[in-house]
Amino acid sequence: MAKSDVKLIGAWPSPFVLRARIALNVKSVEYEFLQETLGSKSELLLKSNPVHKKIPVLLHHDKPICESLIIVEYIDEVWASGPSILPSDPYERAIARFWASYVDEKWFPAMKSIAVAQDDEARKAAVVQVAEGLALLEEAFQKISKGKSFFGGDHIGYLDIAFGGFLGWLRVTEGTGGIKLLNETKTPGLLKWADDFAAHPAVKDVLPDIGKLAEFSKVIVAKMRAAAAAPAK
Amino acid sequence: MAKSDVKLIGAWPSPFVLRARIALNVKSVEYEFLQETLGSKSELLLKSNPVHKKIPVLLHHDKPICESLIIVEYIDEVWASGPSILPSDPYERAIARFWASYVDEKWFPAMKSIAVAQDDEARKAAVVQVAEGLALLEEAFQKISKGKSFFGGDHIGYLDIAFGGFLGWLRVTEGTGGIKLLNETKTPGLLKWADDFAAHPAVKDVLPDIGKLAEFSKVIVAKMRAAAAAPAK
Repeated sequence: MAKSDVKLIGAWPSPFVLRARIALNVKSVEYEFLQETLGSKSELLLKSNPVHKKIPVLLHHDKPICESLIIVEYIDEVWASGPSILPSDPYERAIARFWASYVDEKWFPAMKSIAVAQDDEARKAAVVQVAEGLALLEEAFQKISKGKSFFGGDHIGYLDIAFGGFLGWLRVTEGTGGIKLLNETKTPGLLKWADDFAAHPAVKDVLPDIGKLAEFSKVIVAKMRAAAAAPAK
Repeated sequence: MAKSDVKLIGAWPSPFVLRARIALNVKSVEYEFLQETLGSKSELLLKSNPVHKKIPVLLHHDKPICESLIIVEYIDEVWASGPSILPSDPYERAIARFWASYVDEKWFPAMKSIAVAQDDEARKAAVVQVAEGLALLEEAFQKISKGKSFFGGDHIGYLDIAFGGFLGWLRVTEGTGGIKLLNETKTPGLLKWADDFAAHPAVKDVLPDIGKLAEFSKVIVAKMRAAAAAPAK
């Protein structure tokens, strides 16, 4: 696969872009990483994802594929040059898709609201919600991993990538808030999973540096707070 | 497949439940339809989908599968007793998944807001948004269907089922509001598609009666308006 056949429009701090990068690494696919600048959108991005105008976009032979989880499935279907990302059993696939969707629709929005909470009460409520979500994910991990290191068993799979994309942001949230969202008491499985995931060869070189991400988060959180505080239109 | 091996927890007016029913029909899978009552949730539902507590839930050999689009993919993967629902080409699959996700995340929320709009201005804005979404879907239909009847070509496929689940509600919205959201000028392809879809053998017996759905919508819209008008917590 010539490098120029595969391009990824993205940005290093995005958890969604990270998913695509990890999936490409799992399959040992070389790609050109086209980074967007915060606050502007390139012509290529606008042309490639005119509906949402969002990263990541994977360009394969110049054909655009949008939405991070759809990109991960596409990568899994197109390249056989690495372990399968989705489980082979249809029921296990459904379960992996279910939790990936849960992470996107419920859990991550709650985690974002820890950062943008306007007062202490709202922030505490968001922390409780995130912790409850992690307890659910811990339970799922115990069931799905069957004593192995990852949701995907011995290899990192779809749900590892879906949830793991957020690991850097989870650590930044822990650091900024002085809270241990992953801990020995409530989420022992995920606590170990997080270390194994971060050390995985497909992950370690693309997982953002936590200090750098924490700096970046100050900028983005200020923007989100301003948006949340703006009067409703 | 013994009928008792496959059960679907649902309710006749739900567009999400309808997707699962159509997919089962495409594959000629017999199933037991367990209908929930509006305003209450059965023990079986709460046990089968403890995270979201929502219909539809497919029970296959008593194992629960939740979330309508995940159920449709599961049905496609498990039963070979009918045409494929997802396209076989990975890029076409990605495109079908992209638009299905668009319909769920952007288009249908806009359509709901036509019904619950608190004033005329908000209602008009929602109508514009829905019409813009339909124009995008029309463009996608022209590209994807390649002159055939369905997004899936000669057969109804994933995107037909994802979008078509909402057809009854689209017609109710048109009827209640005295508006033609699907029309010859802007969406000629989708206008014909809607008739072909509604007449399809896998669809016609499960598509809700529009009059009955319009009656039901009065109840549900009143509830949604009340919720939308309630002061923010």
